[in-house]
Amino acid sequence: MNDNPRAVALVSGGLDSATCLALAKHQGFDCYALSFNYGQRHGAEVEAARRVAAAIGVCRHKVISIDLRQFGGSALTDDAMQIPLTPSENIPVTYVPARNTIFLSYALAWAEVTECYDIFIGVNAVDYSGYPDCRPEYIQAYQAMARLATKAGVEGRPVRIHTPLIYLTKAEIVKKGVELGVDYRLTVSCYQADTQGRACGVCEACRLRAEGFKGAGVADPTIYLGSC
Amino acid sequence: MNDNPRAVALVSGGLDSATCLALAKHQGFDCYALSFNYGQRHGAEVEAARRVAAAIGVCRHKVISIDLRQFGGSALTDDAMQIPLTPSENIPVTYVPARNTIFLSYALAWAEVTECYDIFIGVNAVDYSGYPDCRPEYIQAYQAMARLATKAGVEGRPVRIHTPLIYLTKAEIVKKGVELGVDYRLTVSCYQADTQGRACGVCEACRLRAEGFKGAGVADPTIYLGSC
Repeated sequence: MNDNPRAVALVSGGLDSATCLALAKHQGFDCYALSFNYGQRHGAEVEAARRVAAAIGVCRHKVISIDLRQFGGSALTDDAMQIPLTPSENIPVTYVPARNTIFLSYALAWAEVTECYDIFIGVNAVDYSGYPDCRPEYIQAYQAMARLATKAGVEGRPVRIHTPLIYLTKAEIVKKGVELGVDYRLTVSCYQADTQGRACGVCEACRLRAEGFKGAGVADPTIYLGSC
Repeated sequence: MNDNPRAVALVSGGLDSATCLALAKHQGFDCYALSFNYGQRHGAEVEAARRVAAAIGVCRHKVISIDLRQFGGSALTDDAMQIPLTPSENIPVTYVPARNTIFLSYALAWAEVTECYDIFIGVNAVDYSGYPDCRPEYIQAYQAMARLATKAGVEGRPVRIHTPLIYLTKAEIVKKGVELGVDYRLTVSCYQADTQGRACGVCEACRLRAEGFKGAGVADPTIYLGSC
């Protein structure tokens, strides 16, 4: 066992969380990757998360199954709702109620058990979809709550929630990841990717991702449906 | 559909949450009961939760399976750890890392989907076991976070976390429940109850419960192992 600090990193399989994991590792953390199979449409994401965690290198990777389809209420967890193809002025139907709150809560539990005092999450408040649980004020409030929630916090080792991407544009995220050697071919961002992870090219997640590669001047390695 | 306000109520099957559910109902809420099968030793708790929800009367009752045994780190979720029989000066080993944070996060998700703006949780900071996630400052921080986390919060309908038992002694909780007609025979508090819900009579949860009945001057209806 080495003396590196340890961190729990949430890894969805998408572009942002892959970059976030690479940044955590670059900062010297031994990473405990945590992913969720939450009944999302884009199940290819979880396979992507496994590839990303293996490629970047983590101490452990847990994939937790949680059935958010029991609640529904989002186009990502309810097949009766359509994935929108145009940006929304309000919070879009792809918002999954309390998703990041649930994910961070599991991260907090695992962090406490493994004696990690740092959690990385790749939320972004610039080129994002307007989800309330991606905003800096939310993350600050979560951290304040987490410090009161846990034995570690009470005992003077408060957890820190790191959001290294929060103020970056998608193009800046791509540039950062390329510098760190992230292989974006392994990642899947599309809300309705097929089982092989091929992207639709038209949903908002695809649009933001494609613009990120374009803005960064990096060739888009995404495999689109119908492109091969 | 009537005009009553709706609330999500966390129901563990124990004495406190049964009383809390009865209070929510008494306050005029139509209740959505939420319980967890989290790999706890005392699986009889979940059966008790079903009985309690049915007896008090709820609109819906969901039991969510979440495997906190994947993380371990508590005597309640790791069979290799012993249930202590004496109170601890520190946070005891029966503390389950981030348990209430995870439970409340699911409650928040369900509340958002069902358009509930109220969540009831039967935490108690008087006759309790020193768990950090039962303290009023934790609950306040959780509510502040929850209001930033959700679409409802952003749209001006912030969620409220109700903790009607938080400043009551166990005896006061029992008195309140008896007034409201709660049938405590249906509840299971013991950390190591058998599959039929019979209590060990010696763990801290049993001790606090028995003292509550005694202090309230109410006959203890608990069925103890070996008592029948």
